[in-house]
Amino acid sequence: MRVTLSALDTSETFFKPLVVLELARDVKEETRKWLEKKINDKKKNGGAQLLIRPLVEKCEEQTLESQNLYLVGASTVRLLLGAESVGLVKECNDNAMRAFTYETRQNFKGFSDDNDDFLTMAECQFIVKHELENLRARDEKMIPGYPQAKLYPGKSILRRLLTYGLVTQIFPLHDSEALKKLESTWYNRFKLKYQPLDGIRTYFGETIALYFGFLEYFTFALIPMALIGLPYYVFDWEDYDKYVIFASFNLIWSTVILEVWKRGCALMTYRWGTLLMKRQFEEPRPGFHGVLGINPITGREEPLYSSFKRQLRIYLVSLPFVCLCLYFSLYVMTIYFDLEAWAQDVHRESHFPELTNVLLFVPSIVYAVVIEVMNRLYRFAAEFLTSWENHRLESAYQNHLVLKVLVFNFLNCFASLFYIAFVMKDMKLLRQSLATLLITSQILNQIVETFLPYWLQRKHGLRVKKKVQALKADVDVTLYEQIILEKEKGTYLGTFDDYLELFLQFGYVSLFSCVYPLAAAFAVLNNLSEINSDALKMCKVFKRPFAEPSSSIGVWQLAFETMSVISVVTNCALIGMSPQLNAVFPDSKTDLILIVVAAEHALLALKFVLAFVIPDKPREIQVKLAKLEFESVEALKQQEENSDPEGYTQGENE
Amino acid sequence: MRVTLSALDTSETFFKPLVVLELARDVKEETRKWLEKKINDKKKNGGAQLLIRPLVEKCEEQTLESQNLYLVGASTVRLLLGAESVGLVKECNDNAMRAFTYETRQNFKGFSDDNDDFLTMAECQFIVKHELENLRARDEKMIPGYPQAKLYPGKSILRRLLTYGLVTQIFPLHDSEALKKLESTWYNRFKLKYQPLDGIRTYFGETIALYFGFLEYFTFALIPMALIGLPYYVFDWEDYDKYVIFASFNLIWSTVILEVWKRGCALMTYRWGTLLMKRQFEEPRPGFHGVLGINPITGREEPLYSSFKRQLRIYLVSLPFVCLCLYFSLYVMTIYFDLEAWAQDVHRESHFPELTNVLLFVPSIVYAVVIEVMNRLYRFAAEFLTSWENHRLESAYQNHLVLKVLVFNFLNCFASLFYIAFVMKDMKLLRQSLATLLITSQILNQIVETFLPYWLQRKHGLRVKKKVQALKADVDVTLYEQIILEKEKGTYLGTFDDYLELFLQFGYVSLFSCVYPLAAAFAVLNNLSEINSDALKMCKVFKRPFAEPSSSIGVWQLAFETMSVISVVTNCALIGMSPQLNAVFPDSKTDLILIVVAAEHALLALKFVLAFVIPDKPREIQVKLAKLEFESVEALKQQEENSDPEGYTQGENE
Repeated sequence: MRVTLSALDTSETFFKPLVVLELARDVKEETRKWLEKKINDKKKNGGAQLLIRPLVEKCEEQTLESQNLYLVGASTVRLLLGAESVGLVKECNDNAMRAFTYETRQNFKGFSDDNDDFLTMAECQFIVKHELENLRARDEKMIPGYPQAKLYPGKSILRRLLTYGLVTQIFPLHDSEALKKLESTWYNRFKLKYQPLDGIRTYFGETIALYFGFLEYFTFALIPMALIGLPYYVFDWEDYDKYVIFASFNLIWSTVILEVWKRGCALMTYRWGTLLMKRQFEEPRPGFHGVLGINPITGREEPLYSSFKRQLRIYLVSLPFVCLCLYFSLYVMTIYFDLEAWAQDVHRESHFPELTNVLLFVPSIVYAVVIEVMNRLYRFAAEFLTSWENHRLESAYQNHLVLKVLVFNFLNCFASLFYIAFVMKDMKLLRQSLATLLITSQILNQIVETFLPYWLQRKHGLRVKKKVQALKADVDVTLYEQIILEKEKGTYLGTFDDYLELFLQFGYVSLFSCVYPLAAAFAVLNNLSEINSDALKMCKVFKRPFAEPSSSIGVWQLAFETMSVISVVTNCALIGMSPQLNAVFPDSKTDLILIVVAAEHALLALKFVLAFVIPDKPREIQVKLAKLEFESVEALKQQEENSDPEGYTQGENE
Repeated sequence: MRVTLSALDTSETFFKPLVVLELARDVKEETRKWLEKKINDKKKNGGAQLLIRPLVEKCEEQTLESQNLYLVGASTVRLLLGAESVGLVKECNDNAMRAFTYETRQNFKGFSDDNDDFLTMAECQFIVKHELENLRARDEKMIPGYPQAKLYPGKSILRRLLTYGLVTQIFPLHDSEALKKLESTWYNRFKLKYQPLDGIRTYFGETIALYFGFLEYFTFALIPMALIGLPYYVFDWEDYDKYVIFASFNLIWSTVILEVWKRGCALMTYRWGTLLMKRQFEEPRPGFHGVLGINPITGREEPLYSSFKRQLRIYLVSLPFVCLCLYFSLYVMTIYFDLEAWAQDVHRESHFPELTNVLLFVPSIVYAVVIEVMNRLYRFAAEFLTSWENHRLESAYQNHLVLKVLVFNFLNCFASLFYIAFVMKDMKLLRQSLATLLITSQILNQIVETFLPYWLQRKHGLRVKKKVQALKADVDVTLYEQIILEKEKGTYLGTFDDYLELFLQFGYVSLFSCVYPLAAAFAVLNNLSEINSDALKMCKVFKRPFAEPSSSIGVWQLAFETMSVISVVTNCALIGMSPQLNAVFPDSKTDLILIVVAAEHALLALKFVLAFVIPDKPREIQVKLAKLEFESVEALKQQEENSDPEGYTQGENE
């Protein structure tokens, strides 16, 4: 991407805009100047030593609007030093991955002093974001011009500006050329092929690349299940032994694929360097508040909040609230089943079956809508509660939020199926409900998540284009247009919802797999198109997200593993209830149950043994990690052997 | 301890013997000289830079025997440098634990240049052992004088000497005074008190201190179970609801104590510095062999053995063999039950009941003996097989050995109980067998493990004393006598057998706890005396073992957790089978089973949730660890900010 806006060309030839900073419209000039200086200032003066330019120079303010937008960039050397301080891991000339340091830069593959491509644009943007967030107050007691916006030594200035609403947003710029290239290899073709995961990672960062990697892997992993499930549908097999085989295969298979994913994930993140990346010290999340005190870890003055109080809030408020919501969800479910029964009664006794036939669909539709509404309301409540729990770290906040949402969504989506399966014991109805839920939720998701925003986005884009062209300014407006367009796009809120969708899908496929073997086939079809629609969403609909390094899919691994444990229990129970199996033990139901329970325990034990026996990292990666560890130990020894510290030779002669 | 043997006094005033090295009787003079030189030589010449002296100088060889014994020591500075290279973690003046480095030695608590007590004797011995084991061949192709004993660059010389039988043993010296002090606070008193764990750690190292810590913790943790169990015995309670309460308490309790132990363990090992100690790069274990090749991790030439071949050996030979042994053990058990039934038949139909009454005991006695014999034979076979699997690392060898032995011992000890409980369904017999097995195994163990060796040891000690006194040499023979005495003592083979004993005890207590609530009380009594007898064993019976740093009880944590999971299953099954509970559901056995299974699943789920919710490390330790991490990140940043690398300011002006 070439910077062509005249305003930039005049002042600095090498300035490449990486990140856009939007201030509120009414920010005082004083504050503006102070912030600009802070960002520009040398590190030793407490600055970030980055480059910052207004998008529009003073002289042009009359013709172009949006004088609140600033472009942030950095010199190559500054970026390299930043790469060192965020702990970026890169490949060396001897093919090993090592933490980048500026001093040893010549050892790294693809590095030369006149090469700007060593760091990818996403990495540069991550570094700039990190540096901006680490811009800390020194002696300032408040943000100049806003005495209410208090600061204290060590407080992140950007976070205070954001919580105070003086900075409205900060986002990285798209790189149109690179994006086009990525799109052409990613989703524009209709033939099946692997996604360009390395390309996605280069452009969007590791967290998003891992999501797409997992989506692809999961889809491939479902294919065997789909293939084995197909004949059950085609030939209408109903023999219990065939079901047992199918369910057993599914249970082992789901364990194996989750374990193998860990290995594949380690391979990928090793290549990307994030497996080796040391976790940075986490700063308090923006919403965190408390009484000023000394942080026992950093020794700095910052707001503290007692962990005991937080535990009280979690166990005495959040936990009961979640339980209440779960109870309410179950209550709504029973109402649904009452309605359903009532509708069928009415239909049966009706004199106008054509009219009441429609009535039969009403309860399910109402219930589906209610579930959706409850999910959204609950999500809102969960976010409020988790935020009120006042977690110091973003990661802790995320974990508590994920846990709350997962439990509720799990119950909301599957409770009716559990009820049909284990209380009503109506397998026909179970199969039918499962199919309806799976297929409708998939179709709805794709429409709501991607195509609707894409369409809205497109309409807005055309409007902006027209407006910009109408300006007929004599400056080249490519960059200007791009930024105005991007700043209005929605923000991608992270991979949470995408993983949640996959998680629920995994539930539909595995929990009742022996009743509805076709589920896997539908899931595969959905995921093939999901890959495309998610890709479209990332490239076209949303602002470019900041790259986030991550070395695994985190808490989702645990969630999927838990689901696969639950599915062992449900499948064994379903098989135990099947009439075919009950016919084999006509006299003694007790024996049947004992055998099923024994089989279930054996399967669970096998799962744990498998998870234990399959190493989490492939041998190759283990060796590479061990090699790095060995290197650092050897380096230490070498140092010791070479140096002859004072007193050592003297000690020898004692 | 003062060195008083004249031979030492003459040559070096400051020499404090730490470790004894015994060579074979017929080692060539050439080899002796070479080894002495190697140990003495400077590091840069490939030596260990330690001090070595023969126990007996040439001139005294006529009066005193044992010219094959060498004393190894080191100067204070050498030891401090060694402490740095093994990565010892010590407390600093600001109460934080940090890895010791020679350069920053003044920051550490209790350090001053004229203070020899900074490192404990056990630490010094560990360092000397580490340095001796790291004495590596450079250009030597063989051990001088023994062309068959091949060497290659990087091969540990001591390991080659040991495998070749030229060095017969190497052991650390006791410190009689410190030992006496330790004994007086440890086990000489009869009143109940905490063990001096820090003292044990100082003298014996972390691995052994952790064992005693676990033993003590486990004993205390059993007390509530014992107390709750007592009234069941006293009042002869048989109500099923009381049993359910007892069993549920036990199951939750056993989960909680295992989780809490992890926290206590982290607290202790943080204080001892091993929690922070970086794992050293592990060398191949002595018995490892293979074809010379390039180690992918170190890049050095050393024997390699393909992991694929090892897997083949494990899965195609060891695994089937273990299964066969398990089958054989079960087969022997059925023979025992046949014998038992036959004996009872004979007794019932006998005309001489007094005579056949004795016959009734024969099967159990025979079976007990057979079990013991099988355990020992199997242990031998397991060691052979695991060694044949040719693991490169000692830790991998240990893990595979522990797994093999655990599975077999578990089956051997508990199979008959399982058979009685779930096949014969004879609760009276179960209670009786459980009591017999538990009590007899505890008594036998204490006699065989401790008092017998102690008695033998004592006899031998008196003999040596007499012999030494008979010499009437004119040198002070305290050290000489001590070493001659210690070298004949048995070697402590590690904590394996001690943990195994506790593990089986935990099985007796928890697996069938609802049938025999008194088990915990017996276990507590046993452990109180076990603490004393194990302490006696460590102090009097065995050679002093080398201190081994360790940060947890390792694989045993997993073993105990697995046992507690199994005990949930067995206890639920036992309660489900109880006649009292069956009387509640007279008509529908199916409902009963379903309820029991549901309760079991709920308990298992609760266990996993508890294990997940209770953090493995106390908050205090988490904060301390985070603080250290933060410090190192900050130090790096400081470095970056202070240095102005070439080209940076230049880059700024671009």
